[in-house]
Amino acid sequence: MTETLGSTGEFGLIAAVTRGLARGEDVLVGPGDDAAVVAVPDGRLVITTDLLVEGRHFRQDWSSAYDVGRKAAAQNLSDIVAMGARPTSMVVGFGAPADLPTAWALELNQGLVDEAELLEVSIIGGDTVQSDKIVVSVTAFGSLDGRAPVLRSGARPGDEVAVVGRLGWAEAGYAVLQRGFRSPRSVVEAHRRPQPPYAEGPRAAIAGASSMCDVSDGLLSDLGHIAEASQVVIDVRSRALTVAEPLQAVAAATGADALGFVLTGGEDHALVGTFEPADVPDGWTVIGAVAEGNENVPAGTVTVDGAAYTAVSGHAHFRS
Amino acid sequence: MTETLGSTGEFGLIAAVTRGLARGEDVLVGPGDDAAVVAVPDGRLVITTDLLVEGRHFRQDWSSAYDVGRKAAAQNLSDIVAMGARPTSMVVGFGAPADLPTAWALELNQGLVDEAELLEVSIIGGDTVQSDKIVVSVTAFGSLDGRAPVLRSGARPGDEVAVVGRLGWAEAGYAVLQRGFRSPRSVVEAHRRPQPPYAEGPRAAIAGASSMCDVSDGLLSDLGHIAEASQVVIDVRSRALTVAEPLQAVAAATGADALGFVLTGGEDHALVGTFEPADVPDGWTVIGAVAEGNENVPAGTVTVDGAAYTAVSGHAHFRS
Repeated sequence: MTETLGSTGEFGLIAAVTRGLARGEDVLVGPGDDAAVVAVPDGRLVITTDLLVEGRHFRQDWSSAYDVGRKAAAQNLSDIVAMGARPTSMVVGFGAPADLPTAWALELNQGLVDEAELLEVSIIGGDTVQSDKIVVSVTAFGSLDGRAPVLRSGARPGDEVAVVGRLGWAEAGYAVLQRGFRSPRSVVEAHRRPQPPYAEGPRAAIAGASSMCDVSDGLLSDLGHIAEASQVVIDVRSRALTVAEPLQAVAAATGADALGFVLTGGEDHALVGTFEPADVPDGWTVIGAVAEGNENVPAGTVTVDGAAYTAVSGHAHFRS
Repeated sequence: MTETLGSTGEFGLIAAVTRGLARGEDVLVGPGDDAAVVAVPDGRLVITTDLLVEGRHFRQDWSSAYDVGRKAAAQNLSDIVAMGARPTSMVVGFGAPADLPTAWALELNQGLVDEAELLEVSIIGGDTVQSDKIVVSVTAFGSLDGRAPVLRSGARPGDEVAVVGRLGWAEAGYAVLQRGFRSPRSVVEAHRRPQPPYAEGPRAAIAGASSMCDVSDGLLSDLGHIAEASQVVIDVRSRALTVAEPLQAVAAATGADALGFVLTGGEDHALVGTFEPADVPDGWTVIGAVAEGNENVPAGTVTVDGAAYTAVSGHAHFRS
């Protein structure tokens, strides 16, 4: 008989998932008490939280439990590095039905642990509850190591806009899966398990990024957050964007616009930032420029090749 | 037409809930960026997380959105004070269906805000997603203000066990609601909205509590956590426990055992701690004593009046 959460029980599950956890030096009190205690030598802590819900953010037939764990950790850790910070620890809330195989929960946990260990991040606590659908909430923490946080509000006219990491791959993967296909494998894998360019966040901060965010809603949507917070206009040069071969293949097969994947696809967790021209780090691609708003193009606007981009825009929850 | 989350949209909801947020001095970057940044002058941060799921932790016909917000905040803030810490800030994840009236989400938010403001706690960030059932995840933070955390593992033979706050009221309220009744009102209100004795957590720490936890699973179950972590035996003297009149009324009406509510009912978020006899703070009630384990009663055991308590034990998720 398959062991389920109902037979393992809450305390059994907690014991199983906490047994193998690595514990960083900054973890003063780990799992097992009312709360955890972490050392914050920098005197400031960076904090982000995300909720993943079955059916909205993942489907059991599209993603393995392990993939869901990797993704849940990745999207939070990406938010931390997008502040220019170094991820240090995280807590996890997990809701699931009692008939879920315990192995599923343990694989999810392994995915969380493995993604965290890429960055030597400790899982320091959590909560497990019963729920009809699987829910995973992650709250992640990071250290600025003495630096100022890189906000969305610091872009200045004259800055260049640069990006690092994949754009549109996860969205192309989603388009493929939605049609019942499983290939090209590279984009399906990108949807299942993002590979954020973690090291580039602190690197951009050290290089002097004036603003930064991670691309979770889609490039244009997330640049819109920077343009609005910074009260500037951002123009993206479409020719500077790479449209990789697998995206072209998916676009051709599905009748979609390959550039649309790149401009509006989220969830690859690329990093986009603004820099004085001399500060753009090696390995980042300059894709546009920051300007002042004017009568025709008010501050807060993002344009593509100088014009409004009219295709479907970034992903917003609660709207379809 | 009723405005729903579908018409308000994610960004509309975020704008509405962040507009009125108070911002403490320790909040360096509040909502609106990839992550928040808080000042941690103590050099250590206390962290706890809880997930509340509709149908498991609350029912819309039993609790108002406002009550759910108060409760979600309270159960996390209670975990922070149970470490002897002062709550400082929290982040909130919120999942709900698109057809949920926007007013419901705003009332939930007001409940979170009002409970937080009791302790001058700032809500510093969050996430909103679409979900079939309502899900609320709260991660709360606190400062030890230079003190050592009060753990579950510090109880010593010879200590007295003392409690402050209500026991069994929420459970009695749940018993009433389950039978379709709405009175006694006092216990129903206790189920809907716990009133943890927040100030007593740091006070107990200052008084020298050797161990402490909040009563969320039930007195015997939570004392079991202390007994196990401290490798001691804890005996509760039933005569020292107050069985308030409304609990007796509910027990009489439902055929339940009133003392059972007190010993095994959770979710009132009383605080239970162990102290050297001279250290028990005013206002706390001594209800038992800590002893060494022996051949007949091994370490990790909780007894009532020297014997095993055989009625239903504390609440464990995934089991019914």
